[in-house]
Amino acid sequence: MDYFYRMNAIDQLRSTFLQHLKNRITESEPAGLYDPVHYILELGGKRLRPLLTLMSAKMYGAQVQDALDAAVAVEVFHNFTLLHDDIMDAADLRRGQATVHKKWNTNTGILSGDAMLIMAYRLFEGCDREQFFQLHKIFSKTALEVCEGQQYDVDFETRDDVTVSEYLLMIQLKTSVLLGCALQMGAIIAGVDKKEQELIYNYGIHLGLAFQLMDDYLDAFGDLATFGKEVGGDIRENKKTYLFLRSIENEDCATELKEWFALDHEEMNEDQIEEKKEIVKIFFEESGGAAATLEAIKHYTVKALAIVEQLSISDENKKELHDFSVDLMSRVS
Amino acid sequence: MDYFYRMNAIDQLRSTFLQHLKNRITESEPAGLYDPVHYILELGGKRLRPLLTLMSAKMYGAQVQDALDAAVAVEVFHNFTLLHDDIMDAADLRRGQATVHKKWNTNTGILSGDAMLIMAYRLFEGCDREQFFQLHKIFSKTALEVCEGQQYDVDFETRDDVTVSEYLLMIQLKTSVLLGCALQMGAIIAGVDKKEQELIYNYGIHLGLAFQLMDDYLDAFGDLATFGKEVGGDIRENKKTYLFLRSIENEDCATELKEWFALDHEEMNEDQIEEKKEIVKIFFEESGGAAATLEAIKHYTVKALAIVEQLSISDENKKELHDFSVDLMSRVS
Repeated sequence: MDYFYRMNAIDQLRSTFLQHLKNRITESEPAGLYDPVHYILELGGKRLRPLLTLMSAKMYGAQVQDALDAAVAVEVFHNFTLLHDDIMDAADLRRGQATVHKKWNTNTGILSGDAMLIMAYRLFEGCDREQFFQLHKIFSKTALEVCEGQQYDVDFETRDDVTVSEYLLMIQLKTSVLLGCALQMGAIIAGVDKKEQELIYNYGIHLGLAFQLMDDYLDAFGDLATFGKEVGGDIRENKKTYLFLRSIENEDCATELKEWFALDHEEMNEDQIEEKKEIVKIFFEESGGAAATLEAIKHYTVKALAIVEQLSISDENKKELHDFSVDLMSRVS
Repeated sequence: MDYFYRMNAIDQLRSTFLQHLKNRITESEPAGLYDPVHYILELGGKRLRPLLTLMSAKMYGAQVQDALDAAVAVEVFHNFTLLHDDIMDAADLRRGQATVHKKWNTNTGILSGDAMLIMAYRLFEGCDREQFFQLHKIFSKTALEVCEGQQYDVDFETRDDVTVSEYLLMIQLKTSVLLGCALQMGAIIAGVDKKEQELIYNYGIHLGLAFQLMDDYLDAFGDLATFGKEVGGDIRENKKTYLFLRSIENEDCATELKEWFALDHEEMNEDQIEEKKEIVKIFFEESGGAAATLEAIKHYTVKALAIVEQLSISDENKKELHDFSVDLMSRVS
């Protein structure tokens, strides 16, 4: 299967998903509650999570049709987390557009987010009783873990002693478990056994860790034209990402890097912030932190790919999932 | 059954519920996420909603034991709505204590609230598949309606043309549907048929309307010592409650009342606000609005009591539910 064929298959799944998203999310009144829901769902994005649900269902022999509601649920949930996270982070932009709380206000952001979480749950109601129960269970467990991950992220902002393993746990909760959940939901719909469900879930965990570390890396070293948000935003905000934590392991750079990360961006002008970004990026590279991050991305990608080989799916599907994973890690945005 | 016996039975249910609430909500890490959850759940209150679930289950012949998780779910959900509503209303106090976003901060309030909504859903997982499905369905439908009610409440703040029937729809969504849902959940656990479920749900709707109108009435005419929140808070905030909407139906009072309700409390000192409260209360009484509100409370209570007579429960249980409803409407807080 060549690259173009593969991309076509995924584009086709995405387009099927987008059509279903539009047909399925039709609530409209009161407009103050539902307009922001439609707005954030239509901002675009890779639609990675629903694609994982559809790919997983398809690979295990289910009809794509039967997995569409669960795919919409995971996308609605993901966008609910983005909506509330944007309020907590006081972020002005999301995919280059005004965030909901900026376009409307904070109260609207809170309430429309709440509605989205409930809407996500309701999307499982079309499934048979046993599948419904299983989907609800993995979804709820995951949703609570995502909240826990977000809380750890908030806690880490005011801590100076965050370890690399604590950081990895945080991103696992905040990002990876939802990828695992998305994949497992596809497997549940296809009716595969618990052991196989766990395997595909674990593939998602490793893929998610690689994916989030890549996000950390691209935040500093990505390209403005394709990244879609501010390059160096984490440096501006003094976010102690994997890149930072691995860089300060090098004692020659630790003191100075920590000094740069003690500066409050609200007391700096844009020129000073740009200068900080440039200098910090040099430290990230010279300390070996950037290389260590790329190494970790490779490590988790290799682990994910090893799990792909163990899955009970056809060789053709293994190849497709393998290539999809590699493409995802070669992304520039 | 005499008054003391009845009160003992309800107190006993409440105490069983409180014990189960404590045993069932044990999540603790990260503390930043779960401490506020325990804090708001322990602030107290009448525990009306979980009591309704337990009473309904018991009256229809289920074991109270089997309805405890659903009772906790409805209380956790209700407190989630209080938590997020307090942020939206910028309220400093809840049951005489600091609100979560005051004691911690807004971000904590948002995230801990999100976690509570998910925790509520997880509490149904112990039920059998069919009951689980039915509980999930009525709960989700209700939860989304509560969000819609809150949105209408927000919308009404900036509208001058809210009608009495729009106001009644808003309080039905914001308050009544959750009482109906709490009762229906008990009936689902007891395994009664759909028609009977609808009947007990409708009892809850009418009880809820009476209950919320009583809340509007007590906000103006309640007793500081027992009301638990600021008496006249709605007048301070220019809330167009039923009391206000019915008062301005009297053309002799409408113009002056509207003028008072155009004053911004942030531009007034406390003496001026107290004076406003006193004058507005006189208008509420002289316009006939207060009497109309009491009449409406009676109307919905009578309707609720008529439904009680139609329920397929023992005469003893009918009497208990009847007396419970009457007591609830005789409350002073």
